[in-house]
Amino acid sequence: MSHAALVWSLLSTLRQRRPLVHNITNFVVMNSTANALLSLGASPIMAHAEEEMEELLGIAGALVLNIGTLSPHWIASMRLAARLAAERNLPVALDPVGAGASRLRTATSLALANVGKPAVIRGNASEIMALAGAAGATKGVDSSHGSEAAEEAAWNLAKTYSCVVVASGAVDFVTDGSSDIRISGGSALTPLVTGMGCAATAVVGAFLAVADSPLDAALAGMGVMKVAAELAADGASGPGSFEPAFRDALHNLAAADLDDRLMVA
Amino acid sequence: MSHAALVWSLLSTLRQRRPLVHNITNFVVMNSTANALLSLGASPIMAHAEEEMEELLGIAGALVLNIGTLSPHWIASMRLAARLAAERNLPVALDPVGAGASRLRTATSLALANVGKPAVIRGNASEIMALAGAAGATKGVDSSHGSEAAEEAAWNLAKTYSCVVVASGAVDFVTDGSSDIRISGGSALTPLVTGMGCAATAVVGAFLAVADSPLDAALAGMGVMKVAAELAADGASGPGSFEPAFRDALHNLAAADLDDRLMVA
Amino acid sequence: MSHAALVWSLLSTLRQRRPLVHNITNFVVMNSTANALLSLGASPIMAHAEEEMEELLGIAGALVLNIGTLSPHWIASMRLAARLAAERNLPVALDPVGAGASRLRTATSLALANVGKPAVIRGNASEIMALAGAAGATKGVDSSHGSEAAEEAAWNLAKTYSCVVVASGAVDFVTDGSSDIRISGGSALTPLVTGMGCAATAVVGAFLAVADSPLDAALAGMGVMKVAAELAADGASGPGSFEPAFRDALHNLAAADLDDRLMVA
Repeated sequence: MSHAALVWSLLSTLRQRRPLVHNITNFVVMNSTANALLSLGASPIMAHAEEEMEELLGIAGALVLNIGTLSPHWIASMRLAARLAAERNLPVALDPVGAGASRLRTATSLALANVGKPAVIRGNASEIMALAGAAGATKGVDSSHGSEAAEEAAWNLAKTYSCVVVASGAVDFVTDGSSDIRISGGSALTPLVTGMGCAATAVVGAFLAVADSPLDAALAGMGVMKVAAELAADGASGPGSFEPAFRDALHNLAAADLDDRLMVA
Repeated sequence: MSHAALVWSLLSTLRQRRPLVHNITNFVVMNSTANALLSLGASPIMAHAEEEMEELLGIAGALVLNIGTLSPHWIASMRLAARLAAERNLPVALDPVGAGASRLRTATSLALANVGKPAVIRGNASEIMALAGAAGATKGVDSSHGSEAAEEAAWNLAKTYSCVVVASGAVDFVTDGSSDIRISGGSALTPLVTGMGCAATAVVGAFLAVADSPLDAALAGMGVMKVAAELAADGASGPGSFEPAFRDALHNLAAADLDDRLMVA
Repeated sequence: MSHAALVWSLLSTLRQRRPLVHNITNFVVMNSTANALLSLGASPIMAHAEEEMEELLGIAGALVLNIGTLSPHWIASMRLAARLAAERNLPVALDPVGAGASRLRTATSLALANVGKPAVIRGNASEIMALAGAAGATKGVDSSHGSEAAEEAAWNLAKTYSCVVVASGAVDFVTDGSSDIRISGGSALTPLVTGMGCAATAVVGAFLAVADSPLDAALAGMGVMKVAAELAADGASGPGSFEPAFRDALHNLAAADLDDRLMVA
């Protein structure tokens, strides 16, 4: 099966099953993340109260943890959710927003990775490099640079946590520690809209609820994001018109769009 | 006066008076709710600090309580607001988001209904059924199903709390416990945009500030939502373009639109 | 150099340097503020945890404080950020949302102004008048009215806090306590979109990171907001379509747009 056919198959399954995806995410992107999941065909739950966590996770198909606007109460809530998810083998997607920019972010990301045993960690190159470095998953002084360094960090982080790691950017690098793929395409407008990376993590999380493997889920999630962004950019005049067009494209994404535009190597 | 003429009259009054509507709502929809109220012609206040609650409620024309991303601090804030609103006969619209999905949500919704004596409770069918069940407002084992069960639950909940209950969906069911109306129309894109139900509750809340009765406010609020959604869907390519078009439609809504499209039975 | 040439020069510098702008702002506008900064060409950081404040402010070029949905924890966070910013001479833009509507808001705004020594305070006329009054920056019973009263309050507040004060509205009044400018233009749709004032404060904050003086930053920030709003309104059908068009206009703003449309007196 081609990559496009695999992604289409998973998207079709997702749209049919409409999995509940539980998100504990940051204040900036709650609305846009919920809307991305709805446009994709999933059902978002956005909730963080510890008192109801066990009940809500009991009906969810996946958990998305995003530390974007972290604070002590929210970290406690995410840790509880991570622990409960691990206990019931609920797949977890982790977004270590800003890892490396503060010790709190790096430490919280690693703590959640340790407790929640995420199926997928998705960050940008600097976040993935910061996590790999803090986890001792790099080999001392790193002599590689730029995307090469990020790819090496992703490999090492994937092996350390036995999970899939996505280092996203102009080209998304995806590895499970034993193989890797690169997804290109997309649009230069994507980084000019806040929360597109967070949406990608949530979309990967939704695919975790229906895919056979985290690697397939990461491919499908990052793949539909790239193709929808490319379609949206075609008619956009800037980041403002790009954002609703992206949601339309995600909602309308067809097999032919994936055939024509999905670029995986 | 026809339903369309009544709704138009209330909308015209609202646009003229621009009532202040105090919202304690969830993180996901704060932006979209404030924007819906502004497009309607009302003035939103979004505030939750207990320290300023009494002052701010003193200048508001209605209070909207929405438990969507509830947590202990926010529940305390909503309870205080509910009590103060009841003391000063400020009309309250209550949105029991997710009632039935967790005990915390069901219990919080009923506690707010008991304290705040809401003029209107608006939820989807499952939320209304969960509240009616938990309030003992159903007659033992319920033999009805689907929309019939939701309508029965709405009637019973309305009688128990002496308020108007809206069970919204493809057809909105509205009852004050002694009569009922059904509003149809709208768009299948509505449930694909997060917060449209929350916006409906806030819009009903705004009409509470200018209407003679909660039933009129519920009719006007749910009616303008249905007609604006239908107008927005006409030119939309998906949920992304639907959302700004909905705000435009709410802002531009004219008497002729209500005459042509408002479907009440 | 003309006003338009000055603003264009600052905008070009900003787009080149992409300054990090640290925001502690309200839940309603976090998404739209981050998006406005991205469309402008700046890099937003949205974070409030006290535990990471010093590290994050260490990489920021400016701090934006907005009290919109204030509560005790957030006030403590904003006070810490204000103190740290003052210690390291990081320029601060302060948005006293709702000052005058509650004692908590007025007192918090003045406390942040005292601690953070803001370069710019931006509010609407009633907020600026409330702050000037509470700060004792008015001369007893004020005999002036309307925009004249707001201008007098802005002058007095600017002198009291040795900062630039912007009283924004249909015409933005900007003063450093020794001279003043008025910026007109814009669109009547602006106040129908929530958070446009908050975005203006953040945009001024971004210019603080690259401008020679707070007065230049205020002129540039309020100027690009007015011109982008005017451009966006040209093709908008209401507040819904206006909002993405505004972001596009901010992103695409060219020297000729400023030459043609910036109105400063």
